[in-house]
Amino acid sequence: MAGQYIEQNRERSLEELFELLRIPSVSAKSEHKSDMVKCAGWLADALRKAGADRAEVMPTEGNPVVYAQKIVDPSKPTVLVYGHYDVMPPEPLDEWNSEPFEPVIKDNRIYCRGANDDKGQLYMHAKAFETMAATGTLPCNVKFMIEGEEEIGSGSLYRWCEDNREMLRADIILVSDTSLIAWDVPSITCGLRGLAYVEVEVSGPDKDLHSGLYGGAVANPANVLAKMIASLTDDNGRITIPGFYDKVRELTPREREDFNKAPFSAEEFMKSIGIPDIYGEKGYTTIERTGVRPTLDVNGIWGGYTGEGSKTIIPAKATAKISMRLVPDQDHNEISRLFEEHFVAIAPAGVRVKVTPMHGGQPYVTPTDLPAYGAASKAIEETFGKKPLPYYSGGSIPIISGFENILGTKSLLMGFGLDCDGIHSPNESYGVDNFLRGIETIIAFYKYFAE
Amino acid sequence: MAGQYIEQNRERSLEELFELLRIPSVSAKSEHKSDMVKCAGWLADALRKAGADRAEVMPTEGNPVVYAQKIVDPSKPTVLVYGHYDVMPPEPLDEWNSEPFEPVIKDNRIYCRGANDDKGQLYMHAKAFETMAATGTLPCNVKFMIEGEEEIGSGSLYRWCEDNREMLRADIILVSDTSLIAWDVPSITCGLRGLAYVEVEVSGPDKDLHSGLYGGAVANPANVLAKMIASLTDDNGRITIPGFYDKVRELTPREREDFNKAPFSAEEFMKSIGIPDIYGEKGYTTIERTGVRPTLDVNGIWGGYTGEGSKTIIPAKATAKISMRLVPDQDHNEISRLFEEHFVAIAPAGVRVKVTPMHGGQPYVTPTDLPAYGAASKAIEETFGKKPLPYYSGGSIPIISGFENILGTKSLLMGFGLDCDGIHSPNESYGVDNFLRGIETIIAFYKYFAE
Repeated sequence: MAGQYIEQNRERSLEELFELLRIPSVSAKSEHKSDMVKCAGWLADALRKAGADRAEVMPTEGNPVVYAQKIVDPSKPTVLVYGHYDVMPPEPLDEWNSEPFEPVIKDNRIYCRGANDDKGQLYMHAKAFETMAATGTLPCNVKFMIEGEEEIGSGSLYRWCEDNREMLRADIILVSDTSLIAWDVPSITCGLRGLAYVEVEVSGPDKDLHSGLYGGAVANPANVLAKMIASLTDDNGRITIPGFYDKVRELTPREREDFNKAPFSAEEFMKSIGIPDIYGEKGYTTIERTGVRPTLDVNGIWGGYTGEGSKTIIPAKATAKISMRLVPDQDHNEISRLFEEHFVAIAPAGVRVKVTPMHGGQPYVTPTDLPAYGAASKAIEETFGKKPLPYYSGGSIPIISGFENILGTKSLLMGFGLDCDGIHSPNESYGVDNFLRGIETIIAFYKYFAE
Repeated sequence: MAGQYIEQNRERSLEELFELLRIPSVSAKSEHKSDMVKCAGWLADALRKAGADRAEVMPTEGNPVVYAQKIVDPSKPTVLVYGHYDVMPPEPLDEWNSEPFEPVIKDNRIYCRGANDDKGQLYMHAKAFETMAATGTLPCNVKFMIEGEEEIGSGSLYRWCEDNREMLRADIILVSDTSLIAWDVPSITCGLRGLAYVEVEVSGPDKDLHSGLYGGAVANPANVLAKMIASLTDDNGRITIPGFYDKVRELTPREREDFNKAPFSAEEFMKSIGIPDIYGEKGYTTIERTGVRPTLDVNGIWGGYTGEGSKTIIPAKATAKISMRLVPDQDHNEISRLFEEHFVAIAPAGVRVKVTPMHGGQPYVTPTDLPAYGAASKAIEETFGKKPLPYYSGGSIPIISGFENILGTKSLLMGFGLDCDGIHSPNESYGVDNFLRGIETIIAFYKYFAE
């Protein structure tokens, strides 16, 4: 019955998703403030139409949160769906094959910023809810909280959760913001890395200088920044910040063995992203490097003349955005502090250094003996025909550990993305089949969870 | 008589210079192609009006060259004036206090891109020529060659000089494109550093990647570029490229002693450019570091997300513009080659590296026993009241050594800029007094040179 409803409403569902995707809700840029409000309003309307008996846009200090609910019977279990309506900036624009905010379907995939992350994935929940409500098969209570700041650290959601603890009471938080190992290797994400994100600025002269007249006698902020960044990792790919690894939980030999059972082909990995060789911390496999080891990556760097041709200057300053992915039991506040202390300490005399912590989040692990894990496992087995593997993702959803701290509720990460979706990259996409099977699987999850 | 003429025509001269400054003749950017042509035409007209009996815009493969001449008597000596009408890009635009291409006078200084480098300085020659022609005091023949590609390496001028050797025959090439040590410490530039300018690109994945999902398992091009740049200099500020110093002429103890007699205050130097400490190659003074030692400076660096807020990506590539200032007897072609070989050799396996040589020029030294040096020395002593010091500038005018090779003619570098002019920087300026006294001094130079 549910399957029939999904099929009959397929075109309308996709059209609605396209409407949602067209709103350029980029949280990193203040110019999109009004798009955030528009997007939240659109979602509240959509959830009301889908069957919510309460759906509203709730203000925060930052972007609003969309809250909706349908209480079928207070004695039944409650699922709290979490998602985010904000998206990554679309840049670099010239690498998109179509407009970043105009969805197009090609080879049965939806191309658009947010197609997967997270508009496509969160809208599966709206459609699963609508299907169950419309066909009278909703087996438990449902609540939705959809925020607009996930990509910039969920700054306002912590406070909003604290202020609304009672309203948000639930048995499980259900999240679709992760990927499957592969379409034919379904998985449930049990681990997420934490994140500490900083911006660093190295400044020297009070203006750009002529590199001939001053070159050799002035510490060049761009050269210095390069040296400082270079020194943050050693030749074995280990991070050199004192204390950085102190709380990293090393796997036991048995855990490592299990961990490396997940299917992995170095050749396919390299080919899928076009790299000439794999790389990473010495002594660990690729799966371990992204799953259980911390990282330090430059996300952006700029300084001096970056236009066409040549300009002979010593730049007044150089800047970098640096993020560190963290693993249990690292604490993002402590790591940000260690980074800042170290970075300031290694600055040479000829420059000034500024470190600005941007956002962060704690690592998270979902126990596989959780009832919701069992329900998700059965649901996926039903729709994919295969029992899912537990998977440790390299990604971060910082707010997840916040939910546990503030609400005391665990989260279940049942995402339907694939690596080829290119989230955060130009030409982000999401498979139409992933969208439709996701809806089916969510409905199956509710059924098993309410049992 | 000349002094009176300069004073009477002061306002008109400045108005004409302002017209020249308003043309945004940025050679680094192809969008300014028509401005280059416009600027050349304007200058040819101005030189004709100033008294040239021939003045024309001559095409090259790139931007045109302005050629003009007045032959008073073929048996008299000939001065060939060289200058350039192209200017540096004005970026960063938000650091300008006024429009980059709308000259304003403040505190008796002209603020505009090109106010000094080189429009203000070359226009002194047009006005000195006009003054001598109008007052019947031109004591020798004058030729002008004003190019439009100095800031991007004078690519077309070499060929143009080869094609016009006969026309360009002269006893000295007179150039005002350098600075005085200070207004009260006048100087003649006897040494210029050479230049080798390259752009390097480090690329890895075929698109920006999610730094969570891939972080730790992929060589990050921005981190790698930082490491590669960092390794190009050691802890003593020495450049590590094999063979880089092989042809560097070390000063004798006696030469060093003389060289360091030029007035220098570390405190004033630091204050003038707002740096917290001096810096440079160990074992050398600041004057030596800019005058007789080679350098390696990052002029620009960029990669990944550089906008507002945070974006968690591994950039597909990272790029830097790097220039090396060279000293006798380094050869820029050889240094570019050594750089490229080394940079490719040190690239780790997980990335691809591309090195693009941009432009270069040889170091140059003017002997102080040249007749033109003596004439310039007397002229400066007459107008400044002090005998000028010989000065070794850190800057480069690559074409100068080209002139000697192609035309067999030496150059005399009599510039009237000051360090505070901020050439190549935002808010470039040139003192009105420098402009006027420059005209006077050039006229005096002609007088002594013709004696």
